[in-house]
Parts: sequence; C-alpha cells; structure tokens
Amino acid sequence: MFETYEERMRQMKLYVIGIGPGGEEQMTLRAVRALEKCDCIAGYRLYLELIADLIAGKEQIQTGMMREVDRCTAARDAALAGKTVAVVSSGDAGVYGMAGLMFELCEGKDIDIEVIPGITAACSGAAVLGSPLTCDFAAISLSDLLTPWEVIEKRVLHAAQGDFAMALYNPASKKRTDHLRRVCDIILTIQPPETICGLVSNIGREGESYQLLTLGKLRDTPADMLTTVFIGNSRTRVISGRMVTPRGYRGV
Amino acid sequence: MFETYEERMRQMKLYVIGIGPGGEEQMTLRAVRALEKCDCIAGYRLYLELIADLIAGKEQIQTGMMREVDRCTAARDAALAGKTVAVVSSGDAGVYGMAGLMFELCEGKDIDIEVIPGITAACSGAAVLGSPLTCDFAAISLSDLLTPWEVIEKRVLHAAQGDFAMALYNPASKKRTDHLRRVCDIILTIQPPETICGLVSNIGREGESYQLLTLGKLRDTPADMLTTVFIGNSRTRVISGRMVTPRGYRGV
Repeated sequence: MFETYEERMRQMKLYVIGIGPGGEEQMTLRAVRALEKCDCIAGYRLYLELIADLIAGKEQIQTGMMREVDRCTAARDAALAGKTVAVVSSGDAGVYGMAGLMFELCEGKDIDIEVIPGITAACSGAAVLGSPLTCDFAAISLSDLLTPWEVIEKRVLHAAQGDFAMALYNPASKKRTDHLRRVCDIILTIQPPETICGLVSNIGREGESYQLLTLGKLRDTPADMLTTVFIGNSRTRVISGRMVTPRGYRGV
Repeated sequence: MFETYEERMRQMKLYVIGIGPGGEEQMTLRAVRALEKCDCIAGYRLYLELIADLIAGKEQIQTGMMREVDRCTAARDAALAGKTVAVVSSGDAGVYGMAGLMFELCEGKDIDIEVIPGITAACSGAAVLGSPLTCDFAAISLSDLLTPWEVIEKRVLHAAQGDFAMALYNPASKKRTDHLRRVCDIILTIQPPETICGLVSNIGREGESYQLLTLGKLRDTPADMLTTVFIGNSRTRVISGRMVTPRGYRGV
C-alpha cells in the first residue's frame, strides 16, 4: 500500500475534531476541510448524524455513548493501518471531548494528532442566554462516571467561593437525577437564592430552548443530559430578558 | 429611509460575533453568513484586519484597544439608525468579549441582539498544546483593569484548591509585568512546582508557538498580552511532547 517509509509516515495522521453544538453551520471551515481529507470518521452516532452530509460515503466507526475507549482504539488502529482518520466530538474536541483519550491511546505510536477546536457548550449555551460568562468562569461536569462525586462537590464549592460564573455540563442522566439539586444546595451555602441562573437545551439543534430562573428555583427544576446549566456570579443580572454578567466597563 | 414602522423594526438587528483566534478559516459558517448580512462592522483594528477580505467595502467602526465603550456605543447608535451592525470580538463573543457590554448599552432600546459564539482561547490554545482542559477547568483573566486584583488572587487560589486546570487570559501587559509571577506563587502554595504548564502565543495566527514547562519555571518566564497560559491540574502530564489532562477513561 505504501511505496516508501516516508510515504507511510505521511499517512499516519489523525484529527480530533470538535464539531460545535450541531450541524455544519456551527463548525469552523478548518474542521470542514479536515473532515473532507479523511477516509474514516469515528464518533458517537448522534454526532455523526449531525454531519451526515459532510461524511457521506466515508468509512464510519460508530459505537454507543459508553464505548468511547473501544471507538477511539478502533480509530487509532485505522490510522496505524494508513487511513486518514477523524475522531469527532460534539462541542470542543478538548473540553470533555476525545482529544485527551486519543493522546493516551496513541502514546508511543508514530501518529501525528491534530486537534481542531470547536465551540463548546459553555460558549454556545451562553450565547443563547445572553452573556453569562463575560468574566472569569468555571466549567464543571456533574457526571460522576469518570470523576469521583467528592471531587465534583469540592470543585463546585470552590467555584462558588471564588465567585466564578459556572457552566455545568451533564447535569443529569436517567440514573443520576439528583446531582443538580445537590450541587445547588452547595452553592446556596455561599450565594443567595436570588442568584440568576439559566438552562439551555438542545443548543444549536432542533428544539433549542432556554429558561432563566433563580438558584433557589433551579434547585427544584429537573434537567436532562441534553441541557447545560449556567450559574451566575454575584454580579449577574437580567437585562431585557437575557442573562448578563457585566464585565465592569461601566463601573457596575 | 423606512416605509413603515414594521420595516424599521426589522432593521434593528445587532450581531455580536466571535471570530475565533484568527482569520476566516477558524470562524463558523454562521459567523461568516452574519457578517455578510451586515452594513457596518465594529471592532478593534487588529481583529478587523484578520477578516479584512470578508468585510471589504462595508462601513467600519474602529477604535483602539481601550475604547470599547465608545466603539460599542457607536455600534448601537448605527443599529438605532437602521443599519445592520456586527460587533466583532476575537475568540468568543461572550468570554471576555463584547456581548455583555452590548446588552448593557442596549438596555431599554428596541434592538434584537444575536450573539454568535466563536472559539475562545481556552479551546484554541488547548488544541495547540494537546488536551490540557479535558476535564473541569477555570478561565481567569489576569488583567486588573476591570476586576480588582484581590478578586483575581482569590479566584486563582480557589481554582488551585479545587484542582481545576486553568486557562489564564491576559497574563501580562506593558504595565503589568509581574501578574503571572504573583499568580504562580499563589498556585505554588497548593500545587507542586513540577505541575505541568503550557504557554501558547499568537494562537491561530502567523507566528503561533507553544512551550511546555513546569509551574516552578513558569513563575520566572515572561509572557505578553498575545499569550494564553495553561496550568495543569494534579493529573496533567506530558504525553509525546503534548500537555494532556486525562479524563479518566483508563482508570488513570
């Protein structure tokens, strides 16, 4: 398949691509061009469906949500076999995406990994709500599948003590229905129940919706795994129906 | 200029657009299409130069770096006069961008503000380094022009105590040369000097470069305003010359 060693080396290219919240319009041109170069695309089924037109006719490696390691191992092996491979994540490739795992799986292999960033839910969800993350913020996943729950609780507490605005990823799943409530109770030990919060669901996809509410009310509001939760800091307020954390230009 | 009130209302549209780190290739298609619709583009000169081809022939509102309020007020007034206006920020429109200020300036006016997110430096810089922000992270600006220095110190301390990876924006300027050193000294009270850190300069632009180093060494390394600094958490390590925070899939 390869004429020379150098030629083979040129083929060992693996892209990890963040496709943003959903669909081609929210990808960068750089991401689109990289996908076009690839023979083989690996990703969670839902994400591949979002970019179906772009990857039509290409080999696809699909597995369900919980099979990340299998999928990424298969992608690595396809790259080692000489294919030009893309591993796609929704949102950004780095933030809760597959980039870290691909570096781990390719350690010691001669594969050139190029990470192509995408719009993460902290940014795409914030844009729907207004501008809740104008200043310093913390991104925290409430999933305890890969992070111990005590670590999550500790991070939420420190983020509240530091008066960070927060973007909370994976606020709930079918098995974890009370994580958001428990986290709100931690924040309520620091911040008042009137703190402005926001929920955004199906960001950038069909059915996109958002809701502004107080921290006290958020505590009793159900969320699902397609929702990103935003917690304001001490200066966040509602302006014309949107959630805004002022930067401070106007001395506010 | 307008036939009917309804027609005028349709004109009162203002986009706040994140153009990503630099140049059209790193913008989303949604951002490009919005710019095409606009009559008038407001932004810092350097950012408008990055997208010069896209906005050729359009009215431009440029002011220097420190004149954000003047520029955004002029953009609002152009929208009120019936123009379709875009205010552009580098990176994301929300994160340290102009979205928050535009909502403040347009409060009480009949202007429909649409925020179009872009790739923020936390994500674009992370992609250059490897995957330092795979898990929970905090974004903190070290500029004390709009945030009191004590607040910045408090946030850095809590981010370190929470074992967040960190993306530090605006680590220095001509007037502020010691902020990064002071912040490293705070983190060093919590994390060991061997903690993996990274610097990325001119992300996505000509002259892009990066450097991996330890926290102990970062303390004595100069940075400038075109650099974004990444601080690893307790699990961040170097894999094949890149900075990687494992997500935990492999039980690491």
